[in-house]
Amino acid sequence: MMTSYPKFTAMLTDLYELTMAQVYYREGMFKPATFSLFIREYPPNRGYFISAGLENALAFLESARFMPDDIQYLDSTGLFSHDFLNYLAGFRFTGDVVAVPEGELFFKDEPVLEVTAPIIEAQLVETALINIIHLQVTLATKVSRCVHAARGRSIVDFSLRRTHGVDAGMAVARAGYIAGMSATSNVLAGKIYGIPVAGTMAHSFITSFESEINAFRAFADIFGDRTVLLIDTYDTLAGAEKAVTVAREMKAQDRRLRGVRLDSGDMTELSRQVRDLFRREGVPDIQIFASGGYDEFKIDRSIREGAEIDAFGVGTKMGVSADSPYADIAYKLVQFDSRPVMKLSSGKRTLVAPKQVFREEQDGRLAKDTISLREESLAGRPLLKTVMQDGKAVDAPEPLNVIRERFRSAFEKLPEEVRAITDPEPYSVGISERLTALQRKVRHSVIAKELGES
Amino acid sequence: MMTSYPKFTAMLTDLYELTMAQVYYREGMFKPATFSLFIREYPPNRGYFISAGLENALAFLESARFMPDDIQYLDSTGLFSHDFLNYLAGFRFTGDVVAVPEGELFFKDEPVLEVTAPIIEAQLVETALINIIHLQVTLATKVSRCVHAARGRSIVDFSLRRTHGVDAGMAVARAGYIAGMSATSNVLAGKIYGIPVAGTMAHSFITSFESEINAFRAFADIFGDRTVLLIDTYDTLAGAEKAVTVAREMKAQDRRLRGVRLDSGDMTELSRQVRDLFRREGVPDIQIFASGGYDEFKIDRSIREGAEIDAFGVGTKMGVSADSPYADIAYKLVQFDSRPVMKLSSGKRTLVAPKQVFREEQDGRLAKDTISLREESLAGRPLLKTVMQDGKAVDAPEPLNVIRERFRSAFEKLPEEVRAITDPEPYSVGISERLTALQRKVRHSVIAKELGES
Repeated sequence: MMTSYPKFTAMLTDLYELTMAQVYYREGMFKPATFSLFIREYPPNRGYFISAGLENALAFLESARFMPDDIQYLDSTGLFSHDFLNYLAGFRFTGDVVAVPEGELFFKDEPVLEVTAPIIEAQLVETALINIIHLQVTLATKVSRCVHAARGRSIVDFSLRRTHGVDAGMAVARAGYIAGMSATSNVLAGKIYGIPVAGTMAHSFITSFESEINAFRAFADIFGDRTVLLIDTYDTLAGAEKAVTVAREMKAQDRRLRGVRLDSGDMTELSRQVRDLFRREGVPDIQIFASGGYDEFKIDRSIREGAEIDAFGVGTKMGVSADSPYADIAYKLVQFDSRPVMKLSSGKRTLVAPKQVFREEQDGRLAKDTISLREESLAGRPLLKTVMQDGKAVDAPEPLNVIRERFRSAFEKLPEEVRAITDPEPYSVGISERLTALQRKVRHSVIAKELGES
Repeated sequence: MMTSYPKFTAMLTDLYELTMAQVYYREGMFKPATFSLFIREYPPNRGYFISAGLENALAFLESARFMPDDIQYLDSTGLFSHDFLNYLAGFRFTGDVVAVPEGELFFKDEPVLEVTAPIIEAQLVETALINIIHLQVTLATKVSRCVHAARGRSIVDFSLRRTHGVDAGMAVARAGYIAGMSATSNVLAGKIYGIPVAGTMAHSFITSFESEINAFRAFADIFGDRTVLLIDTYDTLAGAEKAVTVAREMKAQDRRLRGVRLDSGDMTELSRQVRDLFRREGVPDIQIFASGGYDEFKIDRSIREGAEIDAFGVGTKMGVSADSPYADIAYKLVQFDSRPVMKLSSGKRTLVAPKQVFREEQDGRLAKDTISLREESLAGRPLLKTVMQDGKAVDAPEPLNVIRERFRSAFEKLPEEVRAITDPEPYSVGISERLTALQRKVRHSVIAKELGES
């Protein structure tokens, strides 16, 4: 929406974070707390998540501040004391963060990130941290499903026009590139993230010319071998014949038409007819792109039905993760002042204490994860790494290609039944004996104290 | 996601806008074009849309620029000539815009906005315009459904943590306030838009104290009459009894507990039990807030089942418009160089030429809209106003409360069967005789030319 607000403002928060913080401040509660960020349940048809957004989250933690006009606004609400507002004016995040590296897979109940900081600081960053990680995890996971369904064909992100704002458009491009898509139409993302950009032409381009073939020629004349012609403005097969004409004209000038795009109608059937035409006309290597309502389900179906499509332009349904636009992500206090804590609210389990996750492989495939206490050392590879200490990121941001390769290699090892795009089977995630015992103990003592005392 | 990008960058565009623009530039196509922004179909259970986002769209059009480092990046793609890059470096939008004022209702096929500008300019702003209007229309419409379902009870926006980025969080607050919600938890939106802010406390706040009642007391001590206690951390009814204790302690100091919040379990049933308890204990006026998974459907059900809930905290499902996170919005060329144009692509109708919409009322209710040519004058009230001329907004931005009141008054006149939250009936939208005739004529001439010539 491009409202004018400073990047990394600490004002990106729910009011209750500030009211709670004022109580902590007044009560002198500056002891360290650990909060755990995790997803409680798989959204429909999901069996895994991709860690994404960490770079943005750390940048937020390093830079979040309240500016003088923020303090003035907060003062105007009449909710806050001057000494607390003074505290906010000097606020910066000084805590530690452990996290699952971006591109790595994680599963439900597993912390993707844990913050340990004075409780007032850890609380104030809750809203922004959840927002950043939730968005990129949701989108990376969605895009990975489209890439998986495409079985090696390219996925190009066409979603910017209908993502939920600019942040979301940038997040699709970044998270989607991690998850294996080939390119994006988003020019700003191309510039900022160095992601390959791609695009063809719009119907308006065609209709602005006196005739379709003149529009094709004008475009091919400038873009040569990078030309992809949109052929469905009036009639797809008639458009394909004009594309053949243009391809021949180009050939006579030693240039090659790269492809055509279909954007309406029964594209599976049309793609076969267009391919047949191209074969008959001796230009079988013109690529066929298709766009229009694609998501992992439609891609999967079209390939199973024999579509002759080389690349999919995937837009809205991927960019808003339409079949499942959110995940049940939570940021829960699990330890305060060395005391493990939990809430009992019905149906919502939180695992107490700072944690680690160990991942075991068997025969080159992911076999089993175990969630443990942070200090445990179990079989397998620990997933959570220290990424921030005393409010400073431990390492420079990772290049996007490194993260993309980490995902590629992790996903390759994920059993097909877990990564299936419909009805995946649950991946095995256990809880260590020590964590199980502590969980039971804390639960009993909370019940005794809170439900006994009333 | 809070990537660092300049506000209002013209780089918020799909690559094809730039490649097409280069062709227009090279071909000297600077003649005026009119593009129409409209929604083709109602998403599930929708029978109306609320115009929203215009202020942001106009701000974008006034300010969109390519900066020197943008030009440098575009040059690096190898797609663009130096004379065209020079053109972009000096780009600004110089066109005219007509639009349905924010807060007004509109219906499918009706243009919510039309741009008339040199085709190259009108094309370059497509992606950002669609993105801005689509997001706010989608969210305003969603929030209005929650407000309608609540039958006078308050709706408070709790969605910031799971909206698709910050832009979306700001858009929910702004568009949702237009659509009648009472307040938002989003502190930045409170500051920037002057929307009332509200909030209670989190489970982490409760669990960070040695006991629940001490957490309650510490909060009430500071916030007095503005205190709303979260009572479900351990057991909702036990929490309600502790809230009664705190309410009595406050009363002894001449203070009043404002309310309690339920956030888990069967909240319809729990709200009745809590209300009974409050009545028995002589504190019947403590308000009951509820949050957790609400949307228009759950609100409607809970009220029909007799929930004793005074206000709903509505989060994720509203903030991402979960049941329908996008609309089939399009920005289509309808006239170029005084020539009305259309595409024929199957199943996608676009109404040609610059248009107007006339709205008729009967007995104080909305009765019928008619889409006409821009220059026609029909019965009823014309909806589209000139909002930008020569690239400058005609008026200063409207105060949000004016827009909110415009919506309130329009919605009041919308027949209940059209605004029903499930299976609404379609509102009557006709097409004028002259537009119908022109539509037919253009269609025939396009078919003759494009499908005859191949």
